[in-house]
Amino acid sequence: MRRIQVSLGERSYPIVIGSGLLDGIAELCGEAGFPVRSSLLVVSDNSVAPLYLDGLTAKLEEGGYKVVTHIIPAGEASKSLTVYEEVMTTAIKAGLDRHSAVLALGGGVVGDLAGFVAATYMRGIGFLQIPTTILAHDSSVGGKVAVNHPLAKNMIGAFYQPKMVVYDLDTLATLPPRDVRSGLAEVIKHGLILDREFAYWCREHAAELLSLQPEALGYALERGCAIKADVVGEDEREHGLRAILNLGHTIGHAIEAVGGYGTFLHGEAISIGMAGSALVAAKLGRPQSLYEETVSMLTALELPVTLPAQYSVDDIIEAMMHDKKFKEGRITFIVPDEIGAVSIVEGVEESVIREVVGQLKKEGSPW
Amino acid sequence: MRRIQVSLGERSYPIVIGSGLLDGIAELCGEAGFPVRSSLLVVSDNSVAPLYLDGLTAKLEEGGYKVVTHIIPAGEASKSLTVYEEVMTTAIKAGLDRHSAVLALGGGVVGDLAGFVAATYMRGIGFLQIPTTILAHDSSVGGKVAVNHPLAKNMIGAFYQPKMVVYDLDTLATLPPRDVRSGLAEVIKHGLILDREFAYWCREHAAELLSLQPEALGYALERGCAIKADVVGEDEREHGLRAILNLGHTIGHAIEAVGGYGTFLHGEAISIGMAGSALVAAKLGRPQSLYEETVSMLTALELPVTLPAQYSVDDIIEAMMHDKKFKEGRITFIVPDEIGAVSIVEGVEESVIREVVGQLKKEGSPW
Ligand SMILES: NC(=O)c1ccc[n+]([C@@H]2O[C@H](COP(=O)([O-])OP(=O)(O)OC[C@H]3O[C@@H](n4cnc5c(N)ncnc54)[C@H](O)[C@@H]3O)[C@@H](O)[C@H]2O)c1
Ligand SMILES: NC(=O)c1ccc[n+]([C@@H]2O[C@H](COP(=O)([O-])OP(=O)(O)OC[C@H]3O[C@@H](n4cnc5c(N)ncnc54)[C@H](O)[C@@H]3O)[C@@H](O)[C@H]2O)c1
Ligand SMILES: [Zn+2]
Ligand SMILES: [Zn+2]
Repeated sequence: MRRIQVSLGERSYPIVIGSGLLDGIAELCGEAGFPVRSSLLVVSDNSVAPLYLDGLTAKLEEGGYKVVTHIIPAGEASKSLTVYEEVMTTAIKAGLDRHSAVLALGGGVVGDLAGFVAATYMRGIGFLQIPTTILAHDSSVGGKVAVNHPLAKNMIGAFYQPKMVVYDLDTLATLPPRDVRSGLAEVIKHGLILDREFAYWCREHAAELLSLQPEALGYALERGCAIKADVVGEDEREHGLRAILNLGHTIGHAIEAVGGYGTFLHGEAISIGMAGSALVAAKLGRPQSLYEETVSMLTALELPVTLPAQYSVDDIIEAMMHDKKFKEGRITFIVPDEIGAVSIVEGVEESVIREVVGQLKKEGSPW
Repeated sequence: MRRIQVSLGERSYPIVIGSGLLDGIAELCGEAGFPVRSSLLVVSDNSVAPLYLDGLTAKLEEGGYKVVTHIIPAGEASKSLTVYEEVMTTAIKAGLDRHSAVLALGGGVVGDLAGFVAATYMRGIGFLQIPTTILAHDSSVGGKVAVNHPLAKNMIGAFYQPKMVVYDLDTLATLPPRDVRSGLAEVIKHGLILDREFAYWCREHAAELLSLQPEALGYALERGCAIKADVVGEDEREHGLRAILNLGHTIGHAIEAVGGYGTFLHGEAISIGMAGSALVAAKLGRPQSLYEETVSMLTALELPVTLPAQYSVDDIIEAMMHDKKFKEGRITFIVPDEIGAVSIVEGVEESVIREVVGQLKKEGSPW
């Protein structure tokens, strides 16, 4: 069992990572401070619930908790105010009070939605995350909770820290392989921004990670969470440093928007974006080898690094504009300096980004 | 001009009270930390907007701000997730970003709704309150923001502090007399719980308060805000002490619920509730004079202290049950000890409350 402490003063909390953790979930809820006999609202989605919800509920009830469940449809569309209100209705009807807590059993969608419910039900009650995807290692650190507005993603939300994150590696066994790879993109991102050694370790252990070998996976999630926790500990409310976590995301978000959400999974899109960032780096004078090293790491994890031909450069740039990321033809961009180090560079010219997106379409390598 | 500092560490903020303040609103926004040229979303309702919105907008624009407005229908029904989403849509369409702020121009309804928008738009942006009711002196301290769920009031919300409160006494001139009295009920409540001298001062200056004489009104709002600020400073997230602010509210809320929201205004209902609390106090051995003194203060402010005959005791008790306030036939109740001091008493018997509600119907005095 691995344990990381996310240090945020009185909002600090532990992330527990290991196999078989759900067997001891009631004890962990006690440690999280949820009083026995209080009501716990477990939110899950209709892909995850059939696999793990009954087991979880049984363990919680054995431990003396009252359990209420709410199952949402799987997928990003559930991160809406409509579904949010439905979960609120369940909570009110079940009589949840200030001593109750919300448990999120699922990936980032369930975590973000359930977290926003916890943040705003009676102005905030306990929250515990049980991530069942690799990508959710990212959302389990940092306290960002949100739903989408029809006009913009993650627009409505809060910063709200869980009391604990319980990462049971066993639940990852059923994750579709594409989601495994997508999640690993965020894992290696944490290496690329701050931990050179870890980035190389990921490349070396790619096969074990892709096959969900528990020892490797546990270590990778621990490092990924720990790196993010360091960044968030310095900048809880995203005033500055935290921006480095957006490596690959400016281009990645634009790819997701143009492709339509779901064409590329998030991790796939940011993988292409991280390849793009390395191209930007080369144009700004960083070592030429950076791009090739970056790409070798991403492809080791079977992640895409080029943009399919049907994507138009104009559309991608326009999506970035729409995202309000350009100011007077310039953009703030997270640029790698070397493997394991990045800079926040202000005033990168639109023309540079435009060229890079073009290169991503021509199978990447500009050399 | 009067100024109170609400002391909450890094979330501290000033309340500015005086006449003619809206003329200097742009400077105050600057002091609140909103960068010139950023966008300000002013939320108001359709009773208040025709009176003060154009003037406010002009001053803000003169000061270099971009102004976006959203007008909601006046009344409690606007504190809904539906209206909340509409305000969010306005904010997104207007391109509000992290440097933008939300200004609430109106009473508690506008303040609670706009505050919840500010708390959750892009996970929290600046917030400034411009209260235009007396009751809103209460909501301008403490950071409680919320909307209602169809099944329960104020169920969805957050603790979110404004950057500043600008209380322009001139705006109170147009407030309907019933809302003046209702607001004064919360003012004197602050005296009744913690400041004996202030409570007597309110009785003595009742005529000036009812006629909105600026010197008396300014002082009363300053003391009301300051007392609440002291309580909230000790207990920002309502873990204990803050409960004393609920003097009169247990019975008051039940009266509101049974009568249908709107039959009694909030302040009227808690006035009856405060009279009821003094009756409870007498049953628990507090001095008999307490009830008469309390009633004399409330009636000086032309507030009701008895329950109309058509209210059934059973209905009132049932509403409290529904409110989950009873546990095994007992309830935690805020009981006055003397004018200016209260206790949080656990385990008050249902039978005591039942008797008291009956007495409130018989014109109050049990002697
Ligand atoms: N809060 C943050 O800081 C943060 C960070 C990154 C991403 N996110 C959010 O996370 C979301 C994406 O997260 P995600 O990739 O986990 O998506 P997801 O929650 O939609 O999960 C992906 C798919 O896998 C299924 N699934 C999940 N766990 C499974 C399991 N163990 N076995 C079988 N199927 C399983 C789900 O039902 C879903 O269909 C996005 O909404 C994104 O905005 C938030
Ligand atoms: N957040 C808190 O701590 C807190 C505390 C107390 C009450 N509240 C909330 O406040 C709300 C009640 O506040 P309220 O009494 O101010 O109600 P309100 O906002 O509905 O205002 C009362 C009425 O007066 C009108 N009005 C307001 N200012 C006016 C003016 N200057 N001239 C003419 N008309 C004016 C409004 O349009 C409305 O019709 C409730 O929703 C309650 O839950 C919140
Ligand atoms: Zn991401
Ligand atoms: Zn009140």
